[in-house]
Amino acid sequence: MKVSARNALKGTVKAIVPGTVNTEVTVEVAPGVEVVSIITKASADSLGLAENKEVYAVIKASDVMIAVD
Amino acid sequence: MKVSARNALKGTVKAIVPGTVNTEVTVEVAPGVEVVSIITKASADSLGLAENKEVYAVIKASDVMIAVD
Amino acid sequence: MKVSARNALKGTVKAIVPGTVNTEVTVEVAPGVEVVSIITKASADSLGLAENKEVYAVIKASDVMIAVD
Amino acid sequence: MKVSARNALKGTVKAIVPGTVNTEVTVEVAPGVEVVSIITKASADSLGLAENKEVYAVIKASDVMIAVD
Amino acid sequence: MKVSARNALKGTVKAIVPGTVNTEVTVEVAPGVEVVSIITKASADSLGLAENKEVYAVIKASDVMIAVD
Amino acid sequence: MKVSARNALKGTVKAIVPGTVNTEVTVEVAPGVEVVSIITKASADSLGLAENKEVYAVIKASDVMIAVD
Repeated sequence: MKVSARNALKGTVKAIVPGTVNTEVTVEVAPGVEVVSIITKASADSLGLAENKEVYAVIKASDVMIAVD
Repeated sequence: MKVSARNALKGTVKAIVPGTVNTEVTVEVAPGVEVVSIITKASADSLGLAENKEVYAVIKASDVMIAVD
Repeated sequence: MKVSARNALKGTVKAIVPGTVNTEVTVEVAPGVEVVSIITKASADSLGLAENKEVYAVIKASDVMIAVD
Repeated sequence: MKVSARNALKGTVKAIVPGTVNTEVTVEVAPGVEVVSIITKASADSLGLAENKEVYAVIKASDVMIAVD
Repeated sequence: MKVSARNALKGTVKAIVPGTVNTEVTVEVAPGVEVVSIITKASADSLGLAENKEVYAVIKASDVMIAVD
Repeated sequence: MKVSARNALKGTVKAIVPGTVNTEVTVEVAPGVEVVSIITKASADSLGLAENKEVYAVIKASDVMIAVD
């Protein structure tokens, strides 16, 4: 399945913190560059996520803000 | 200003494509890893964006989906 | 690719209205039930969208609000 | 009240799963076509949601992604 | 229609700037406090928006970030 | 840090309700006008939020819907 979201950053699962409804997933997309994701626990289970698994962090371009110092 | 969004990836502006209302900004957050952002033209102007400028790609954790092959 | 978004409604492209930056895509997910999507023109081109093509309308559960009369 | 979100799919509540902060609501928008929503528990209570109640699944067009196989 | 979004700020339309696809609407929700919204032009037309019209700025709680100086 | 989100409403924290993963923050942006935000508990802790603290409610223009009666 190919999705219209513009960003699909390939990475490795570094940490998974399950809550009751949501699960926090940390993905390393480059050495030292991590992206934190919160998805439903049902989705995390359905995807079979585990540490070191290869995944994509998928982000719509309109959900990326830009900030400057 | 410090914001509650969990992800603030430091990077460099690689490309700016202005439209009439929105502007597309490409940020390199690691060698070969780019994030595409769409913000309003007014915001892009207000931030003084330009190629090679140092910026942050700011993304809420709940806006990051996870995908697997 | 399998994505963490909870909703992936199978449907058929009914209409495509391209703008300069964004494209509006109407998907029929059941007889008489249509979902309108706005994606970037770049994504629409990349997906090879065309009328009558089978697609999925992918929506995160947290982006679905509930309303009552 | 009429809202600017482009999609308001009429349906019936099929299931409600309350959490501590959020509630998961499943809406059948056509026979066999279900949309899962996560809203705050406060909103779910305020709307008086219950199984078989008629509701609308309200979704902004920009929150609908398109995927192809 | 009552919607699950937690915030519905009553206000007055101060400005409408139509684009080709999107329209920018500025709503004054308190003296000197304005909220800028971008909705599709189709929605703006359908709602019959005009300057000085009473409207609500509707925002999901999960779309409100917090920042500190 | 200056961010591309169009809305940054200055206000005062009126209430903080912590959950296990998320925290609900109520901000008064004008006398009698409150905005409810849900952010991760980790973000709330990191920002050092407390009642009566001055904060900004930061909202992207595309996340503001318009409704009429």
